Amino acid sequence: MRAYNFCAGPAALPTAVLEKAQAELLDWRGKGLSIMEMSHRSKDYVAVAEKAEADLRKLMNIPENYKVLFLQGGASLQFSAIPLNLLGKNPKADYIHTGIWSEKATKEAQRYGDINIIEAGTKIDGKLAITEQSQWNLSNDAAYVHYADNETIGGIQFANIPETDKPLVSDFSSSILSAPLDVSKFGLIYAGAQKNIGPAGLTLVIVRDDLLDQAKPEIPSLLKYGSQAKNDSMVNTPATYAWYLSGLVFEWLLEHGGVEAMHKTNLEKSKLLYGYIDSSDFYNNPIAVQNRSIMNVPFTLADEALDKLFLQEAEENHLLNLAGHRSVGGMRASIYNAVPLEGVQALVNFMDDFAKRHG
Amino acid sequence: MRAYNFCAGPAALPTAVLEKAQAELLDWRGKGLSIMEMSHRSKDYVAVAEKAEADLRKLMNIPENYKVLFLQGGASLQFSAIPLNLLGKNPKADYIHTGIWSEKATKEAQRYGDINIIEAGTKIDGKLAITEQSQWNLSNDAAYVHYADNETIGGIQFANIPETDKPLVSDFSSSILSAPLDVSKFGLIYAGAQKNIGPAGLTLVIVRDDLLDQAKPEIPSLLKYGSQAKNDSMVNTPATYAWYLSGLVFEWLLEHGGVEAMHKTNLEKSKLLYGYIDSSDFYNNPIAVQNRSIMNVPFTLADEALDKLFLQEAEENHLLNLAGHRSVGGMRASIYNAVPLEGVQALVNFMDDFAKRHG
Repeated sequence: MRAYNFCAGPAALPTAVLEKAQAELLDWRGKGLSIMEMSHRSKDYVAVAEKAEADLRKLMNIPENYKVLFLQGGASLQFSAIPLNLLGKNPKADYIHTGIWSEKATKEAQRYGDINIIEAGTKIDGKLAITEQSQWNLSNDAAYVHYADNETIGGIQFANIPETDKPLVSDFSSSILSAPLDVSKFGLIYAGAQKNIGPAGLTLVIVRDDLLDQAKPEIPSLLKYGSQAKNDSMVNTPATYAWYLSGLVFEWLLEHGGVEAMHKTNLEKSKLLYGYIDSSDFYNNPIAVQNRSIMNVPFTLADEALDKLFLQEAEENHLLNLAGHRSVGGMRASIYNAVPLEGVQALVNFMDDFAKRHG
Repeated sequence: MRAYNFCAGPAALPTAVLEKAQAELLDWRGKGLSIMEMSHRSKDYVAVAEKAEADLRKLMNIPENYKVLFLQGGASLQFSAIPLNLLGKNPKADYIHTGIWSEKATKEAQRYGDINIIEAGTKIDGKLAITEQSQWNLSNDAAYVHYADNETIGGIQFANIPETDKPLVSDFSSSILSAPLDVSKFGLIYAGAQKNIGPAGLTLVIVRDDLLDQAKPEIPSLLKYGSQAKNDSMVNTPATYAWYLSGLVFEWLLEHGGVEAMHKTNLEKSKLLYGYIDSSDFYNNPIAVQNRSIMNVPFTLADEALDKLFLQEAEENHLLNLAGHRSVGGMRASIYNAVPLEGVQALVNFMDDFAKRHG
């Protein structure tokens, strides 16, 4: 049987998507071979790749002056690719710090440019929060402003899109497709696939046309957005199977009401879980209400000596991968699109039962 | 039904491997989730990843002073990563040209170093061949010597490993695991997975320990062999499903007698196909006998006006993807490990029948 999987990434995929992939794994649409055995330049495969892009454009309402790139290397390779692509004309960029991932992005960018760091983490009434934009020391002459919409490890998320007249560049690895988004407010959006899109090994970059040709001379050719855009992300062989699976996820999202419907369910899921945590003396979430992630919910138990038992009993109840990130400990429930409301309800039921027995 | 697939890459995978992947796609070993839904840092996944490496080490008899890296980006990203990793102390390298892929590697290396190009392509009695090493103008002070063992597009392969006291760096994308290889003769071997290893999206780098820390300062952090080696190829999330599938291919190879047994069959397959082509007035292969690839067999028809009909009839006979690379035209049969002898026999039977009807 399929368990409920709260892994932060690689993460749960919709069961219906995996069933479709399974059915056609050895013989794709009667062609006598697997989709993963096909040339990326074959007519059949190109149609699959193009449909995936078209469906994503529909889901996110991506304007025509943006390119969608299906790349490899994860968001972490984009930590290098972004400054290498965008700092060729102007070496300055603003990076907003709210957690571990935005810090990693900053450290890599500092190797290639003149980076102004804005510390935006604060504590309000003992809870972690993101400071108001009025307190940020943004530059007047940055080539772009970078932030991570949702910190997967910390479980802290921006309540609003920052306001700036500079190109806004944002890591949406753990929040893409979880809620409607006005893409036109961004210069560039990027996301590793392995949370809300598909399997690990694929990275989406949605980039505005005017940012395609500002690369630094030392950039590895394959990382150049301009060439990847010109070649439909096929400068070399892309991760064809991951691209195909992501396409199946996009079809599944469209069949289930798109991003709006997902957002509605994601709000229900997160309200259910945060609501239960807040009502309990046994569990605690460390994030201020306005910056709570609707995708990654970290929580601690009243007594951390019970952590191991909690994880063990959860697993026995088919509730998997609830351990917090190795750098912070505690628990974390990642409740991406593919985790259904029933899964969150089952988690809350288990948490309540556990608290009653051990609280 | 499964057809015979002669695609150059992404290429045929063993049917038994796909069947195993299919059986456990939704529920890996009763754990309630797909292997692609698991954290790359989970105990279960790490065991899968480590077994894949151990099996590859066994198959290729890789010495202990070599690291095996499971990376993303394809061989083409290695065209950048190799000079960025190896030219930090000495900017000079020798690149041997034998076709389109070695030329691409050279062009990218020229962006990072002082590259001595050795043109090693020649014609002997009208057939393409690789010149003797005695004719090469190798440098005395190169940081490394680069060549492509097998040119996938041209169908031209080195008969021997070049002799040098410099680190030998070689692209084995289309010939890795096709024949026994003395890894200790190399500084670095690299290969995109999508020909003889697994699905697209994974790249193997086998690199000698002393080459791990000679990187140039501008190298993107994720491309550094030293850090990837220290982190077991998990500096960030790797292409977990492609790694798993490659592990299944390695198991399949071990079950079928390993690289020695594959080589024996590959020699039979290539002898059968080249033998038939040479016996025919209707088909022609342009490569000198000593440099014929045992993996990629390009051939032309006596009348290229028949190409389209040939491809169409081949497909009707379940013989897929025989068109030559778009840059050269004609036909190409890629006969990697996963293409069985019966497939090559079926191809020869069809070719003979076609020639009799149209010759």
